[in-house]
Amino acid sequence: MGIFPRFTRLPLVSTFIWSQYSSALTAVGRETSDRALIVSSSQLIQHRCVHSRGSGASPANPGDAPPRSPFSRVTQKDLAFFTTLLPGRTITDPDLLKSSNIDWLKTVQGNSEVLLRPKTTEEVSQILRYCNDRNLAVCPQGGNTGLVGGSVPVFDEIILSTSLMNQVMMFDGISGILTCQAGCVLENLSHYLEEKDFIMPLDLGAKGSCHIGGNVSTNAGGLRLLRYGSLRGTVLGLEVVLADGRVLNCLAALRKDNTGYDLKQLFIGSEGTLGVITAVSILCPRKPKAVNVAFLGCSSFQQLLETFQCCRGMLGEILSAFEFLDASCMKLLEKHLKLTNPITESPFYIVIETAGSNATHDEEKLHNFLEEVMASSLVTDGTVATEATKIKALWSLRERVTEALTHEGYTYKYDISLPVEKIYDLVQDMRGHLGDMAKNVVGYGHVGDGNLHLNITSPSKDPALLAAIEPYVYEWTSKWKGSISAEHGLGLKKRNYIYYSKSSETVALMGSIKGMLDPKGILNPYKLLPDNIQ
Amino acid sequence: MGIFPRFTRLPLVSTFIWSQYSSALTAVGRETSDRALIVSSSQLIQHRCVHSRGSGASPANPGDAPPRSPFSRVTQKDLAFFTTLLPGRTITDPDLLKSSNIDWLKTVQGNSEVLLRPKTTEEVSQILRYCNDRNLAVCPQGGNTGLVGGSVPVFDEIILSTSLMNQVMMFDGISGILTCQAGCVLENLSHYLEEKDFIMPLDLGAKGSCHIGGNVSTNAGGLRLLRYGSLRGTVLGLEVVLADGRVLNCLAALRKDNTGYDLKQLFIGSEGTLGVITAVSILCPRKPKAVNVAFLGCSSFQQLLETFQCCRGMLGEILSAFEFLDASCMKLLEKHLKLTNPITESPFYIVIETAGSNATHDEEKLHNFLEEVMASSLVTDGTVATEATKIKALWSLRERVTEALTHEGYTYKYDISLPVEKIYDLVQDMRGHLGDMAKNVVGYGHVGDGNLHLNITSPSKDPALLAAIEPYVYEWTSKWKGSISAEHGLGLKKRNYIYYSKSSETVALMGSIKGMLDPKGILNPYKLLPDNIQ
Repeated sequence: MGIFPRFTRLPLVSTFIWSQYSSALTAVGRETSDRALIVSSSQLIQHRCVHSRGSGASPANPGDAPPRSPFSRVTQKDLAFFTTLLPGRTITDPDLLKSSNIDWLKTVQGNSEVLLRPKTTEEVSQILRYCNDRNLAVCPQGGNTGLVGGSVPVFDEIILSTSLMNQVMMFDGISGILTCQAGCVLENLSHYLEEKDFIMPLDLGAKGSCHIGGNVSTNAGGLRLLRYGSLRGTVLGLEVVLADGRVLNCLAALRKDNTGYDLKQLFIGSEGTLGVITAVSILCPRKPKAVNVAFLGCSSFQQLLETFQCCRGMLGEILSAFEFLDASCMKLLEKHLKLTNPITESPFYIVIETAGSNATHDEEKLHNFLEEVMASSLVTDGTVATEATKIKALWSLRERVTEALTHEGYTYKYDISLPVEKIYDLVQDMRGHLGDMAKNVVGYGHVGDGNLHLNITSPSKDPALLAAIEPYVYEWTSKWKGSISAEHGLGLKKRNYIYYSKSSETVALMGSIKGMLDPKGILNPYKLLPDNIQ
Repeated sequence: MGIFPRFTRLPLVSTFIWSQYSSALTAVGRETSDRALIVSSSQLIQHRCVHSRGSGASPANPGDAPPRSPFSRVTQKDLAFFTTLLPGRTITDPDLLKSSNIDWLKTVQGNSEVLLRPKTTEEVSQILRYCNDRNLAVCPQGGNTGLVGGSVPVFDEIILSTSLMNQVMMFDGISGILTCQAGCVLENLSHYLEEKDFIMPLDLGAKGSCHIGGNVSTNAGGLRLLRYGSLRGTVLGLEVVLADGRVLNCLAALRKDNTGYDLKQLFIGSEGTLGVITAVSILCPRKPKAVNVAFLGCSSFQQLLETFQCCRGMLGEILSAFEFLDASCMKLLEKHLKLTNPITESPFYIVIETAGSNATHDEEKLHNFLEEVMASSLVTDGTVATEATKIKALWSLRERVTEALTHEGYTYKYDISLPVEKIYDLVQDMRGHLGDMAKNVVGYGHVGDGNLHLNITSPSKDPALLAAIEPYVYEWTSKWKGSISAEHGLGLKKRNYIYYSKSSETVALMGSIKGMLDPKGILNPYKLLPDNIQ
């Protein structure tokens, strides 16, 4: 499981810090838990929060952890309760907790001392009711593949993992509606559906590890959004446990339902701060009878955009993805992952996927399109795959860019929505702006959705570089009315940048909703909402 | 404008009742405004609300109006304020108010004495701030084409019409994102987009009158949902004025934005009870290069379902609608609208639309499909149209059923979501259940979405018939885990039936949200939420 093997390449965080603080479990306030660790592969940055608890003072860097809020600390009595409720599934062994305390990018690390692995909604309900009564903070965790520090504890929050909630509950082969527990791994659901001639409406690089509940909690976008739309349309129902343990059943498996406010939407993309998603109903498309992938080269971004326009017209309803990466990404794929560029070197590469119901028609459409873009010199070179393994190989050139970047040292990651004609301007502008300060400034992402993944690498974490990037990148995005987080969410790292994309009235209302649903703020604290709501 | 001409066929409600109470405007409590009028074409039913105001007592029939809540009454001073703010656009002439006080079905009538027609968001903001301060109730109104009494005042609520907020604000031909004011008529937007080679992602029978803001407020489904998904996915941004006049700008025209809770979703489908939508950003698909419509006959609903399955497989990505009507609907179309059945008489009729980017491919797919369903005797007869006027003629057989029904006397309308294989069982079961009590029991709707429009007609309003239908129809729906309102919303008429589709925890949370956003309850009172939240 997991296409991104964990903890093999990057050195683990210095264990002495870990062991120093993980043994004693008392309810007395401890200096140790007031630390938030922000770690990188090459450098351990430790933020000692000198502010008194609950002081409300903000950290120096808006992406760093705020002071620990005055939640209770886990006691032996609490552990006894959890162990009785979840015998064998209440994990306190520090070694077993390690991978749940640190994010996949190894940039945020908490020091939770308890990991709970419920199997049922009722167990989640009992856990949250207890934690709410006791004022214990909880970090819900799916596959822990998030990129903004949203899926790991910041301090000593109890980790509530959905990993054992992995059962398919129902599949209706007529409507294509799948209902399953939140901890089902996306790739497993894809395999399950494939046998039934259906597919999941979303696909993303982390599919081997990410949970469907986590996908919904972050409103994951991914590679199929262009074709099948966002989870806001495809998720038909949710079951959610609220902070006080109440179970909200909005799990109706219907395509249409206009009986009152659509409460499930509150939880889609709320990153575990409003409730814990325990089950999902989702509308799944039929498995296409024919899939083709073309990998093309363009000599300019303008030509890439013209290719996109031509593609939408000529491939129309069979277009299922239009992705891009730049030449810098290709160099990293070749260097670190030993992948081979299948076409001649170009400044830009496009991955186009078609998915349709008639192989002959689809091939004809694709052939006509390729003839057109080659004849008009929009595209300089290209290759097409129709066979599954070759399709996978071409896709890996796009999907594994994130992985290749982790080998470069420290990566500053930005996930930006912009008007599509602007997306690469930001990369070029940033290159000029940073000059030699950055090792690499690369761009890739979802052209069809106006979504750029801007990544800036440096041999190690570099505060001067960071100061040159931020808030510059957010100001640039805000100026063009873009979103500072298109699909990754805000989590811990981006929470304080929310005002670049949302008005103060909007954020204030978000705060009211949080206050209404989770008055003690126990659910995934320090995430999504800014430290100070204006 | 308006494909359903208004007030031409049905006699207007007895005007003496109207004139009797519409002249004086005082702030003193008046008996008159404590009446809610439920009218039908042949019979005027007047519900005198004998309960003292604010007593919380419920009406005898859950669909009837509750007692008037203790809102202020409009005074001369209020009128002076409105007239200064909206000179020439503050309507108090009872004749001009008539059409805004009664719904299209002529089943619910209020007696509002003021109609406001703002042109800008700022004006809406000032109106609501004033009304909130003065505790004056407001009924937001778009094209007034709703079917559940949600778009007209119940008592003397001020009518806030979006009819002059009809400007397109922006259209981006690259992304296909349209931003416009809430009062744009759907059909006008379609015409506007057609010139730019795009279409609206939704289409419905009332397109000539309905406003896009009203469509979003009721989360309208319609004829293209099967292909382009619901408004929850296609609406990218909203501007909303809250009850206290605050303007919530969530109008970002981006396909992806994960910066915090998606607040706009609260307002989609909330039927004007949480805020007044003033502008909409919506993602529009490219205009298909080829459209075909097939009108087919089936001898059983089972064969219709099998045809649907076959159709999804063989037409795949070009299928844009799969609608049905039964033989009873066809008889009413022939009788009242003089439409001609283009094929041999059948128990069931199907309208299939394809929309694609390659005429030759689409025709070939359609041809293969028709050959298959004719050869296997799933379909008994059929006709195909590719030319615009013929396509329109075939579509009118489906779109004008609602209109034909209005000629039958009183119609009890039900808009039910069910597992698709169950949808016609309800019609047959209801026929057996009602026997001779009903004049007609007809079924039509959106097979592709599992959405049945069950309509039961009677020469006039008939309490005994109603008692035989309700709660039977809701119990039946609830038993199969369906929705008692798939796309029409709850409005006034269905509000108290919400518990058949939603749990008490869910409804309680809806009430909390209403309380948070509109603490005085001035926005579209008596609608959507039940009289008593459990």
